[in-house]
Amino acid sequence: MTTTPPAEIGMPLEEVDTPALLIDLDAFDRNIETLAAMTKKFGVRLRPHAKTHKSPVIALRQMAHGAVGQCCQKVGEAEVLVAGGVPDVLVTNQIVGRRKLERLAAISKQAHVGVCADNAENVAEINAAAAHFNTTIEVLVEIDLGMGRCGVQAGQPALDLAKIIAGSSNLNFGGLQCYHGSAQHVQGFSERRAVIAKAGETVAGTVALLKENGLDCRLVTGAGTGTFPFEASSGIWNEVQCGSYIFMDADYGRILMEDGEEISTFENSLFVWVTVMSRPSREVAVVDAGLKSFAVDSGMPRVWQVEDTVYERASDEHGKLILGTGAPELPLGSKIKLIPGHCDPTVNLFDWYVGIRAGKVEALWSVAARGAST
Amino acid sequence: MTTTPPAEIGMPLEEVDTPALLIDLDAFDRNIETLAAMTKKFGVRLRPHAKTHKSPVIALRQMAHGAVGQCCQKVGEAEVLVAGGVPDVLVTNQIVGRRKLERLAAISKQAHVGVCADNAENVAEINAAAAHFNTTIEVLVEIDLGMGRCGVQAGQPALDLAKIIAGSSNLNFGGLQCYHGSAQHVQGFSERRAVIAKAGETVAGTVALLKENGLDCRLVTGAGTGTFPFEASSGIWNEVQCGSYIFMDADYGRILMEDGEEISTFENSLFVWVTVMSRPSREVAVVDAGLKSFAVDSGMPRVWQVEDTVYERASDEHGKLILGTGAPELPLGSKIKLIPGHCDPTVNLFDWYVGIRAGKVEALWSVAARGAST
Repeated sequence: MTTTPPAEIGMPLEEVDTPALLIDLDAFDRNIETLAAMTKKFGVRLRPHAKTHKSPVIALRQMAHGAVGQCCQKVGEAEVLVAGGVPDVLVTNQIVGRRKLERLAAISKQAHVGVCADNAENVAEINAAAAHFNTTIEVLVEIDLGMGRCGVQAGQPALDLAKIIAGSSNLNFGGLQCYHGSAQHVQGFSERRAVIAKAGETVAGTVALLKENGLDCRLVTGAGTGTFPFEASSGIWNEVQCGSYIFMDADYGRILMEDGEEISTFENSLFVWVTVMSRPSREVAVVDAGLKSFAVDSGMPRVWQVEDTVYERASDEHGKLILGTGAPELPLGSKIKLIPGHCDPTVNLFDWYVGIRAGKVEALWSVAARGAST
Repeated sequence: MTTTPPAEIGMPLEEVDTPALLIDLDAFDRNIETLAAMTKKFGVRLRPHAKTHKSPVIALRQMAHGAVGQCCQKVGEAEVLVAGGVPDVLVTNQIVGRRKLERLAAISKQAHVGVCADNAENVAEINAAAAHFNTTIEVLVEIDLGMGRCGVQAGQPALDLAKIIAGSSNLNFGGLQCYHGSAQHVQGFSERRAVIAKAGETVAGTVALLKENGLDCRLVTGAGTGTFPFEASSGIWNEVQCGSYIFMDADYGRILMEDGEEISTFENSLFVWVTVMSRPSREVAVVDAGLKSFAVDSGMPRVWQVEDTVYERASDEHGKLILGTGAPELPLGSKIKLIPGHCDPTVNLFDWYVGIRAGKVEALWSVAARGAST
């Protein structure tokens, strides 16, 4: 069940209960403006990924700065976005099964809805669901660029599937989904650039092959926070799908810090606010946030602006901090900020964003699509 | 916001939407009965840990089989349990700060409520909150048995804090919280037995010291699924706090499988039900459940009863399965069961339990305290 918010509008940050998911609204606004300006300069469309924030409020703020719509991974997320007023949603994922596809078809009557495919049988069931609702769904062919996850191979297999989509009564062929997920986390600017340059050749070849066969790609879409300058400047992709840029996290922080200024301009705007609940010794402080307040798949959270202090270990509802000799006192009841290791699955643990500006609570936004994984 | 359930009562399992959190009700019932019988035989009280299930419905089923109450980690969980009719709740954790402590004091007027402490200042603020609500709260001293997390040291420091509690106007001294968390996951039956034997000497010494000083321990409570037969047979602990036994998980499975029959009798009753959504090659199947449907802090989920098939890698909403030569076909749309690596934080990702018996949906229970981490 949805929990009550840990704060009230106007409350000083210090009084916000813990654990709470904080947004630094100034940094958040700057991240939105920065990426909007960069994509405008590159001349590509921006379709931010809502799997990061799961919030129509945030989606509409991104669109007010020029984003063309939203990406998401699940029908449940698309339903929440459309209900919240987002007019253009692309599910960057395969959706399988009648029940889910009929839900997708239903919302395609209220908004522009697209979905990805990598299988002819799946295309047939998408078409059947669209026909059942007397609607049209845009379908993109997903290409595997080397992640080894979903997607057909580039070239002929992509053309074969695109032809099936284009020949389906209730589908529009929308173009290509070309996302290289594993490239986002490759360490080193030039290494990432090389991976995307190679992927770009593959994508360009497939776009050309489709064109020779009379199939235009309205969308050649992909890219994430770790690589988008390469896709955006390639002349091949015409749309980028960054999600994490809006919040950043410890994992992306480690990767982007090594880079040139161009893609290290995003700021940490997302924090988990925690309380010191036990001080068993000089070296140890225990905070009230563990595995149920952080996703740890990309490592432990990073302590924000507290000297010589490391978050060492998480149990369900405990976080053990190790304090070095340069650490401050951190008495019982102290509150500090932590940077999640991985923002997307961390956001999915909370019901509320607490937006902070000038030291007080300015916004309480629902994480409206939290748990919407069907 | 709370999501809609992925199933309806009476629906065949095959039609349940994915990802869904399934309970095999037969195995679940047997786990409840097995532990109830074992603790009765040992002559100790059973107070199961609700941080595992977060459900008053499940709590009341455990109590119908003889459990004396519930443990939890957070005030938010205690509120949900008390509202759901649980008459006796022990927060096995430190609660710091006026706002949280007043919530705790408020529910102590509706149920018997206990909490742990390891700090004299904290005891004073618990007392102030209890006085503010004109109520009495039972406070236990938590002892650090070697985890290096919360708790005072055994012996004199525990006695000093117990005296402060006993001398507080609105507190009852309840005894000792003696939980050895890290021992639960020590590999090897005899190694775990040795760790708890050593901890038992420490606990016994402190109980005796308190008694010499006129302080009786109503509760000497602790233990988890990995070690409880040692605590329960020690003659020192009089209450055990097992949580995971009701569901089990891949991590406890690895540990308990090596043991004697006595503690390997719990069955996997908790599964995540997933759909194959992409079959990019003979060797790879991608399912629709990743980091937002599983906690991976204790490793990847284990595939249940599908030959030669391994869950290799999780991204936010994808799970990549590697199929060996002995694997079945697993066509697009197939549904399979996975065992979570770690049950507690996995349950916390879902809004609904789907209880299955004889192949059909028999129960839809809310994970009522999901996200209740404040």
